[in-house]
Amino acid sequence: MSRTGFDLSVYGVLDPARTRGRDLGEMADAALKGGVTFLQLRIKSENTRTLLAAAFKVVEVTRAHNVPLVINDRVDIAHAVKADGVHIGDEDMPPDHARALLGEEAIIGQTIHSVHEAETYPIAEADYFGVGAVYATASKNRDVPPIGPDGFGEIRHTLQRVAPGKPVVGIAGITSENCAPVMAAGADGVAVISDIFMADDVEAAARRLAAAVRGAGEAAA
Amino acid sequence: MSRTGFDLSVYGVLDPARTRGRDLGEMADAALKGGVTFLQLRIKSENTRTLLAAAFKVVEVTRAHNVPLVINDRVDIAHAVKADGVHIGDEDMPPDHARALLGEEAIIGQTIHSVHEAETYPIAEADYFGVGAVYATASKNRDVPPIGPDGFGEIRHTLQRVAPGKPVVGIAGITSENCAPVMAAGADGVAVISDIFMADDVEAAARRLAAAVRGAGEAAA
Repeated sequence: MSRTGFDLSVYGVLDPARTRGRDLGEMADAALKGGVTFLQLRIKSENTRTLLAAAFKVVEVTRAHNVPLVINDRVDIAHAVKADGVHIGDEDMPPDHARALLGEEAIIGQTIHSVHEAETYPIAEADYFGVGAVYATASKNRDVPPIGPDGFGEIRHTLQRVAPGKPVVGIAGITSENCAPVMAAGADGVAVISDIFMADDVEAAARRLAAAVRGAGEAAA
Repeated sequence: MSRTGFDLSVYGVLDPARTRGRDLGEMADAALKGGVTFLQLRIKSENTRTLLAAAFKVVEVTRAHNVPLVINDRVDIAHAVKADGVHIGDEDMPPDHARALLGEEAIIGQTIHSVHEAETYPIAEADYFGVGAVYATASKNRDVPPIGPDGFGEIRHTLQRVAPGKPVVGIAGITSENCAPVMAAGADGVAVISDIFMADDVEAAARRLAAAVRGAGEAAA
């Protein structure tokens, strides 16, 4: 894996709280078979040993598919399982510390919620950005209203100015049904939790999303 | 700091849940002034950014006093604030991963609850052991009964056999009043939370404990 050239177009976020209790390894495998191009493992509120076991299980799957895996927040877990990097939000390890710990090869993703954050947050170490919440979602509680595809486009525009060439994905509430406007607003991909991992057939859901993202890209081209 | 030669005799465990809401930096400073020789920062259930801020605050104090600081579990936090190492329990990052991440200079402490654990756990990377629960305690819930000073002595004896020369501290429910039998059982020190950090006067409590530990050592000599 490399810090550039990874494909964020169909970005799955695997969270054990959003898999209907199903096995993380099987969920990852089905999603990657369906066309997920990049995976994030996000686990909150577990002890480190449990989290580590889950991450070992998932990294084995992503390695087999040659798809990058980033761990949400926990740089120690990413290091221990030799994941490809971390994804960092407001309450997580700051990007510069993550870089110091994981080294120059690691992929670091950073969440950005607003034009203000894009202009003021330390973002030098980020290799890509997750921008949202694009749509309303049940999987994360925030007090701010969703930004919509237009708001996404505005933040992406700012990021292109302050961090040229770094890819940007939309996140929150995105499905195969509503991803087209996000792609049309310039997204390099969409980060999706529930539309993939809450589906009865995860592989089919991922395939449907991948096709919708590709279709939106072709329509925009 | 170094991986050997540190003084565990008066080992303070600073946990924001056991400081009666007082400032962590002030608590650390008072404890070190009173004679605490080694400090562990233990925080559960906080987000990484909050935990990092607390650790930065405490490491500044331990540096000023030239006393080692280890972080409970969170190897990422220890790395980010350049703490002297980590302390690891059953549910935490395994010692070999902690060593791989923190390097050869880091102090790694490991919790051991029984002779069986002493004989079977991977302990090669540990630089010292915390053995308990010696006495009943309010600050940690475990279903097993306390081992008492005799049980402590038995586990310590086993550790001396399987990991010769590595220091061993007793932990749980230890106070200036009841530390003497633990020291008499061969402890290199006692790890204390409440008797120091729940006290009205933390510095005086640390001084009282330090005197009791020294007195017990002299009585045993």
